Amino acid sequence: MASGKILVAQGGGPTAVINQSLAGVVLEARRFRDVNRVYGAMHGVRGIVSEDLVDLTRETSQNLELVAATPSSALGSTRDKPDLAYCAEIFKVLRAHEIEQFYYIGGNDSSDTVRIVSEQAQAANYALRCIHIPKTIDNDLVGSDHTPGFPSAARFVAQAFAGANLDNAALPGVYVGVVMGRHAGFLTAASALGKKFPDDGPHLIYLPERVFSLDQFLADVKATYERYGRCVIAVSEGIHDASGEAIASLLAKEVERDAHGNVQLSGTGALADLLCDEIKAKLGIKRVRGDTFGYLQRSFIGCVSDVDQREAREVGEKAVQFAMWGARDGSVAIKRTGFYSVDYELLPLTTVAGKTRVMEDEFISASGTDVTDAFRMYLRPLLGSGMPDAFRLRPAPVAKILKR
Amino acid sequence: MASGKILVAQGGGPTAVINQSLAGVVLEARRFRDVNRVYGAMHGVRGIVSEDLVDLTRETSQNLELVAATPSSALGSTRDKPDLAYCAEIFKVLRAHEIEQFYYIGGNDSSDTVRIVSEQAQAANYALRCIHIPKTIDNDLVGSDHTPGFPSAARFVAQAFAGANLDNAALPGVYVGVVMGRHAGFLTAASALGKKFPDDGPHLIYLPERVFSLDQFLADVKATYERYGRCVIAVSEGIHDASGEAIASLLAKEVERDAHGNVQLSGTGALADLLCDEIKAKLGIKRVRGDTFGYLQRSFIGCVSDVDQREAREVGEKAVQFAMWGARDGSVAIKRTGFYSVDYELLPLTTVAGKTRVMEDEFISASGTDVTDAFRMYLRPLLGSGMPDAFRLRPAPVAKILKR
Repeated sequence: MASGKILVAQGGGPTAVINQSLAGVVLEARRFRDVNRVYGAMHGVRGIVSEDLVDLTRETSQNLELVAATPSSALGSTRDKPDLAYCAEIFKVLRAHEIEQFYYIGGNDSSDTVRIVSEQAQAANYALRCIHIPKTIDNDLVGSDHTPGFPSAARFVAQAFAGANLDNAALPGVYVGVVMGRHAGFLTAASALGKKFPDDGPHLIYLPERVFSLDQFLADVKATYERYGRCVIAVSEGIHDASGEAIASLLAKEVERDAHGNVQLSGTGALADLLCDEIKAKLGIKRVRGDTFGYLQRSFIGCVSDVDQREAREVGEKAVQFAMWGARDGSVAIKRTGFYSVDYELLPLTTVAGKTRVMEDEFISASGTDVTDAFRMYLRPLLGSGMPDAFRLRPAPVAKILKR
Repeated sequence: MASGKILVAQGGGPTAVINQSLAGVVLEARRFRDVNRVYGAMHGVRGIVSEDLVDLTRETSQNLELVAATPSSALGSTRDKPDLAYCAEIFKVLRAHEIEQFYYIGGNDSSDTVRIVSEQAQAANYALRCIHIPKTIDNDLVGSDHTPGFPSAARFVAQAFAGANLDNAALPGVYVGVVMGRHAGFLTAASALGKKFPDDGPHLIYLPERVFSLDQFLADVKATYERYGRCVIAVSEGIHDASGEAIASLLAKEVERDAHGNVQLSGTGALADLLCDEIKAKLGIKRVRGDTFGYLQRSFIGCVSDVDQREAREVGEKAVQFAMWGARDGSVAIKRTGFYSVDYELLPLTTVAGKTRVMEDEFISASGTDVTDAFRMYLRPLLGSGMPDAFRLRPAPVAKILKR
């Protein structure tokens, strides 16, 4: 490299391990003698355009390790989706600073940003190596076995439902937990990993991969409540009717959309409240409670999968190796090679960019309200070591004297 | 003792460590040669009346230890508040089974249940030793330095806000987190322990100990947003106007009340959504998100204070010792004796029963929207060891070339 300058940024929703990937890029890049400077852009592509850059080469490896273990995007993030004019602005700044490699850590919107920047760079005949580093709690990137950030969020969801199930067993009623996931139900499905005993919740799981019918939902809840005297339900925020309209957005008074045209689903408890109201009104069940897990599931500090941490670090390291020793732009993907081990490959950006993976049919039960053992086998190793476990008292009834 | 039979039950909202107290009673009682049987009542006093008892003497100490480490009430819980007729039914069952000691693990509603049962037993000339074992995430029992269950819930809240603050810093906007606590703001105030750097959130904390004014709230948010470009807010579900009417219940279409006459505040996202709507409408801020922590804060599996675990076990053990070697009924209380150490005492039931402690003035800042260092000193040792920590990149700006 001539200038020896590379740049890294973080886009989209933060995760518990996105800073592992950042640290992976910085520490691995600094091992290459050709690299003189590792810059970071504040708040993703927005920080490139505004020339708001920091010199990560001046950071200590000690502090980088501590930041790596801290959730959320240390460089800040953005929801901006660059168009051609935006990209022209990006090039001006990258050129001015003689940046030769651009690493962008993000989800499918961010991978599309990398694709546009890559294509614009080629069109402008600017020698820029562009690498997308995967990150999303939604697990919806095409071409990857799974994406960094998902396992830790899945662990949070599984632990949350394991606890909610215990709470619901102590004070029986209906409990609705709404989980993030606009199109892909992976994170909602992770609730199933909170189950241990056959009568544990979640008893019902509603995914965006299946059409949601309120009547069927109420029938399912009624049947479960009659069977167990209680019912724990996991619902994806992205559930929709047969026409594809999100149940949540059908209810929202004012629909908020971001720069990508996405309706705001998180940060409101409306969906949980509506479903609870329906259950109370139509089924006459008194104790009905709804929680929306909201931002806790992607930001909670202290709930992380060690497998996720390790892999998030590795996709950052591998991104640098692909850039240094390869000859093309691309998106780093995780490939499962054993039970359990992984390897990494560089996919063409067009394979990943702007596309959305949803749950495979083999992961969803025939009823549409549960997961299969194939999904449990898929997810369990990702949750990492030290998963908390729930225990019960064993039955030892005392003989009744008054025969009540 | 003649029969050698004792009975233990759990009432009110579950906590992360309530089973530690159960195990404390069972394992400590079994060390006394006078004790032949330790019975548990399923779902609190309701299980006594329905004669739904289990023999905990048949449980292994190994499984008791595993159950102790599992959150939520292993015996099940109830919201029933016994009146005189209900107590007469309790006596019939206790008499029939020759129960000589009654241990009830619960909060201030449960302590009132113990008081009534104790008084009824005396009035009926029935020799029953009644001991209340404290438990509540609200920390609102009179006479205790703090109550088992609160430290673990406080740890959850502190970790949740530490993470939400990082998320909000990455994608700036306004974040409202609603925390449990009907009359006492201790748990909401615990959000302050998630702060590390001076500009970290929560920037504003609203407690039920202070009158809530929507106009002042909006002015506070506006000032904070202008100063930091973002704002993280902790709000108690119990905030109320000058007339004492809860803001949440002012909004609820249908108000649900439990047997104690309490309005349902948890299990709905209405308060967070209303406050977010007000901020969007009145302040014109676009990115406003609200989460209601709901049942996660008392049931999440895998977020527990080791100090809380230890003390919850000890109040169970001490309850048995007070019953065996003392001569009066009472409520076990935690007394702080050092920084940090505790001892236990047995308070008269009338000191605790049905009374509510709220946050002392010395714990609340003059502004009314923050806590004092006295509160930080009070709470920090309770959170236990291994609290996750957040780290930042240190500033190292790159000189601008294009001067944007």
